[in-house]
Amino acid sequence: MEKVNIGLIGAGRIGRLHAMNLKYRVPGTRLFAVADVLEKSAQEIASQLGIPVVTGDYRMLLDNKDIDAVIICSSTDTHAQIITEAAQAGKNIFCEKPIALDIDQIDKALVGVKRAGMKLQIGFNRRFDPSFRKAKDLVKEGKIGSPHIVRITSRDPAPPPIEYIKVSGGIFLDMMIHDFDMIRFLLDDEVKELRAEGSCLVNPEISKYNDVDTALVTLQYKNGAWGTIDNSRKAVYGYDQRIEVFGSEGCIQVGNKKPTEVFWYGAEDTRSDKPLYFFLERYNESYLAEIKHFASCIREDKQPMVDGYDGKMAVIMGYAARESLASRKWVTVAEK
Amino acid sequence: MEKVNIGLIGAGRIGRLHAMNLKYRVPGTRLFAVADVLEKSAQEIASQLGIPVVTGDYRMLLDNKDIDAVIICSSTDTHAQIITEAAQAGKNIFCEKPIALDIDQIDKALVGVKRAGMKLQIGFNRRFDPSFRKAKDLVKEGKIGSPHIVRITSRDPAPPPIEYIKVSGGIFLDMMIHDFDMIRFLLDDEVKELRAEGSCLVNPEISKYNDVDTALVTLQYKNGAWGTIDNSRKAVYGYDQRIEVFGSEGCIQVGNKKPTEVFWYGAEDTRSDKPLYFFLERYNESYLAEIKHFASCIREDKQPMVDGYDGKMAVIMGYAARESLASRKWVTVAEK
Amino acid sequence: MEKVNIGLIGAGRIGRLHAMNLKYRVPGTRLFAVADVLEKSAQEIASQLGIPVVTGDYRMLLDNKDIDAVIICSSTDTHAQIITEAAQAGKNIFCEKPIALDIDQIDKALVGVKRAGMKLQIGFNRRFDPSFRKAKDLVKEGKIGSPHIVRITSRDPAPPPIEYIKVSGGIFLDMMIHDFDMIRFLLDDEVKELRAEGSCLVNPEISKYNDVDTALVTLQYKNGAWGTIDNSRKAVYGYDQRIEVFGSEGCIQVGNKKPTEVFWYGAEDTRSDKPLYFFLERYNESYLAEIKHFASCIREDKQPMVDGYDGKMAVIMGYAARESLASRKWVTVAEK
Amino acid sequence: MEKVNIGLIGAGRIGRLHAMNLKYRVPGTRLFAVADVLEKSAQEIASQLGIPVVTGDYRMLLDNKDIDAVIICSSTDTHAQIITEAAQAGKNIFCEKPIALDIDQIDKALVGVKRAGMKLQIGFNRRFDPSFRKAKDLVKEGKIGSPHIVRITSRDPAPPPIEYIKVSGGIFLDMMIHDFDMIRFLLDDEVKELRAEGSCLVNPEISKYNDVDTALVTLQYKNGAWGTIDNSRKAVYGYDQRIEVFGSEGCIQVGNKKPTEVFWYGAEDTRSDKPLYFFLERYNESYLAEIKHFASCIREDKQPMVDGYDGKMAVIMGYAARESLASRKWVTVAEK
Repeated sequence: MEKVNIGLIGAGRIGRLHAMNLKYRVPGTRLFAVADVLEKSAQEIASQLGIPVVTGDYRMLLDNKDIDAVIICSSTDTHAQIITEAAQAGKNIFCEKPIALDIDQIDKALVGVKRAGMKLQIGFNRRFDPSFRKAKDLVKEGKIGSPHIVRITSRDPAPPPIEYIKVSGGIFLDMMIHDFDMIRFLLDDEVKELRAEGSCLVNPEISKYNDVDTALVTLQYKNGAWGTIDNSRKAVYGYDQRIEVFGSEGCIQVGNKKPTEVFWYGAEDTRSDKPLYFFLERYNESYLAEIKHFASCIREDKQPMVDGYDGKMAVIMGYAARESLASRKWVTVAEK
Repeated sequence: MEKVNIGLIGAGRIGRLHAMNLKYRVPGTRLFAVADVLEKSAQEIASQLGIPVVTGDYRMLLDNKDIDAVIICSSTDTHAQIITEAAQAGKNIFCEKPIALDIDQIDKALVGVKRAGMKLQIGFNRRFDPSFRKAKDLVKEGKIGSPHIVRITSRDPAPPPIEYIKVSGGIFLDMMIHDFDMIRFLLDDEVKELRAEGSCLVNPEISKYNDVDTALVTLQYKNGAWGTIDNSRKAVYGYDQRIEVFGSEGCIQVGNKKPTEVFWYGAEDTRSDKPLYFFLERYNESYLAEIKHFASCIREDKQPMVDGYDGKMAVIMGYAARESLASRKWVTVAEK
Repeated sequence: MEKVNIGLIGAGRIGRLHAMNLKYRVPGTRLFAVADVLEKSAQEIASQLGIPVVTGDYRMLLDNKDIDAVIICSSTDTHAQIITEAAQAGKNIFCEKPIALDIDQIDKALVGVKRAGMKLQIGFNRRFDPSFRKAKDLVKEGKIGSPHIVRITSRDPAPPPIEYIKVSGGIFLDMMIHDFDMIRFLLDDEVKELRAEGSCLVNPEISKYNDVDTALVTLQYKNGAWGTIDNSRKAVYGYDQRIEVFGSEGCIQVGNKKPTEVFWYGAEDTRSDKPLYFFLERYNESYLAEIKHFASCIREDKQPMVDGYDGKMAVIMGYAARESLASRKWVTVAEK
Repeated sequence: MEKVNIGLIGAGRIGRLHAMNLKYRVPGTRLFAVADVLEKSAQEIASQLGIPVVTGDYRMLLDNKDIDAVIICSSTDTHAQIITEAAQAGKNIFCEKPIALDIDQIDKALVGVKRAGMKLQIGFNRRFDPSFRKAKDLVKEGKIGSPHIVRITSRDPAPPPIEYIKVSGGIFLDMMIHDFDMIRFLLDDEVKELRAEGSCLVNPEISKYNDVDTALVTLQYKNGAWGTIDNSRKAVYGYDQRIEVFGSEGCIQVGNKKPTEVFWYGAEDTRSDKPLYFFLERYNESYLAEIKHFASCIREDKQPMVDGYDGKMAVIMGYAARESLASRKWVTVAEK
């Protein structure tokens, strides 16, 4: 196969990141077109990176026979519709998470993709982080025997603006959705049921929007293992992303990445760096790796490691958590 | 004050440990007498350590006017009764946890202690561990701002024999009781409500005795902070005892202690020690420090840092966890 | 200023690395031309990266008025000559280390650069590593008081081929030269005298070429501080690059970088990654940062942080070490 | 064999430490007598620990038929004479380092011990530290292949008083002597030659007594491996005691011990403890282990792991270092 011709839909922060990676660091691909409803954004990125086709209307990309695949980084409410149309147009699809906040919409999109026989990869980039991936591999190789307890800590350095909170779908669908996917990824097993708690300890204003900024979820896998996840919207010491898998024959821990390896011993104490602060730094490698994976799936006609079903299950878990937070009860995690 | 004359009641493993510490490492005390229902055990320890008074009946110690204080390490079902009698006899009391498995018995014992005006310290030795104590001090000094999430991981290297499991009161009253005390200690705050889950992932036989070997508790403090605890009866890599306190201005983590500081870099990976395996090694310093504290409370007429109320609250939390495990619901933690 | 137009001279491994960085990751520059005596190599790189001008003769780049600066990655024996000619042609110059193995040649080249008033930066990329840079900054800020002892450990994962050893100038001029530069960088001070020892512990064949594969240097700075450096051509566990600066008020240590943050606790021990194996991975960030620095020095008309004098002093130290190895005596480090 | 009856000669700081350990923590021994030229010191320790025999004259201990062994902690200038007499009197001997500052005196003492057929253990306690011992065991088991480079860092938290410096024999015989022993211990090999440098960077007054406070030694083992040692009289961050053994198949590092396992993440950095400050804390376990070893050697009629020859070689190395510091040349390490 020749170079994979890619069209980018959505030229915001994440779109730009994928564009940079595609342009400079993913051999075998060609960033051929960019679309954004704010055509100016699309033009900016196009002139900066030398992208031949620029448009305000993503449908022009779908109609373009030279484009093999699209990367969807537009606003969440447009994902499902674009996926459906893109599949129909015969494009392979990479879509940022979540597919949609509505399960029916997700189902329709997935049916469309299946019918068209196209590939769909969802942007759960953390699966491609070298540390998390190694952790999962060790589990899979049986290095810790049967898993008993999975712990995930995931804390952002600072909360997003209230304007964003309002439309985010809430902490479970916006932030913990990554951890729900990680939970499934680490053990290759589904969650049977979960329960969630949370409150606003960072910023009380968030509660006005029926959301929380500090959340804990306890869950049980179908195979009997337990999981716990904690999220906070604000960790002053940086982006805190740790996992632990404890099993019958051992335990795997993944710690945070730090900007330097410097230790300073003084008369009072020993000091070292805090974790990397910004998610784009922390997950720099995984954003690149997921796009390389997508490109190689197209070229080698393989199924992407994170597919539409994964995208759907994480959303289902998010809703289960929301329901549990309200009811204070265990909620079964099930496809409807 | 002269040396504090101490009588030891119960010459089992923990009794022996306290005896060794008293004899050799706690200045200002004198291990004066030892009682055990198995008089032979008492005699053994007495001859080994040169303890003048030996008996099969603890009441002989209570009647002995030369004895200032008793250390109760007999079986749990005798604690409350001995506390009551010892207080009445004018002895200060150090008692291993738990005071009793019955709240009414605990209450009676505490009333007796109060009426007699004696001191009572409960053996939650982990409060005296240098690492946990420093963590608590940092929290108290406001170094992490307002606490939001407390995480405790507490895993034993190997499960006790089934015979012990049968009479232990269950994982929440036997093992997690230490973590319940630590939870209260770390934030100087009470728990409002909690919920518990668990199952037998280590040894299915344990379930026959209506107990679990893997347990998770989620709880909320009165001040709004969240807590999570996980316990396992078996961590092949040793005694896993970690805590984390996350707050608005930072995070404190306490890791495990290792036997050596050796790192070995080879062609495959880097290797280092696993954590200390045995609780007597891991908490060696804290067992000593708690007895020193007890002795100094007597000499300086201070209230012990871990008193009867602390002993009671941990048991109340244990019952709340048992109830929640059965009901799958939140249970309020309250003194009756 | 417009984009800085850059010509690359030498299309080998390091040349390719700089080319990739310039093309994709250094804004404000344009990789305009490439020259290599093996014209095919130049063509390859040019077609891969879309470089307009390709030639087998670097003089064509010097004659090209559109080129502002050259990056010299040709073989060491050509550096001094090309520097001289490039300066005369009014080009700013980035040159890989060492400038030359002959001090007179170095002097001539530096005179030429000075006379022409051009900028010259030498490729001691480790100065741009975030960890080493932070270490130096902490020293400069007085965080450890007066420096007393500097220790550098620098070990390669595997020795180069014997063919390379023959022409390398020996371990002191080929490998430890980086550490000599680091020694000067860390304290902003010159070395007064040094002594060197070494032998062939890795591969006895190396001794045939009057070289060693394991070397230790002890040195004293002009301000009185001591330094020690050890080098080995083979560390099976990867690329071992550590420094330590010990002073009157504290100590700074820089450890190795590892590919992941995974820790695996098993019944035997705890395992984690070995250090990164390959120098291009380890110093990935510093190679990029040095070229960005060069570009910004040109745009903002600043002196590069690593200049010709630095390049010369490291070579002088290398010769002093060779002399000391032979004489087993202290050798004064001095410009002739 | 019955309990080993031990007489302590010298009731200063180290004598007291051994006395405490013998009394409380070394089963199978009996601290039977204590002698000190300051009889009051002996009496103090005797009454505190209930030692039956007290005297101002160590000869009374040597004459006492009930005493099996003596522990010599008197001032250095008396060691050799007491060893000789004790051996003649049929006592096994534990002697603090160094045996003497005069090689002839050492030789005479060792001859006396040999002739009498008694055991002699020298107090190089660091060999008994669990971390260093594990490092040595790993080397011995071939885990790092052939050793190439040994690095020892040994820094005291604060310099001793000038009065002590005057009579100490200098940094090489007083402080680095421990590292010389460790160098021999780690590889089970002798040093062929060494060279030393040093100066007064901590306190210039020390130079008045022909001594240095900062010292570096480079050495070569008979088998060809290299070693480097650095010492400083003052590390503000505590007692810095690290070793590294680098070999053909790997590398072993031993780091410092810290008082707690607490890590505190704040908005600025991550903080943790500095190393333990005081040598009695750092080497607490090794002081106990060496005396247990001595007792077991007597009971089981084994040769102590650190004998008179070891004691002599460390002194010989100390003198070689002094000579090299003066001559600035390599000095051969050889028994005369």
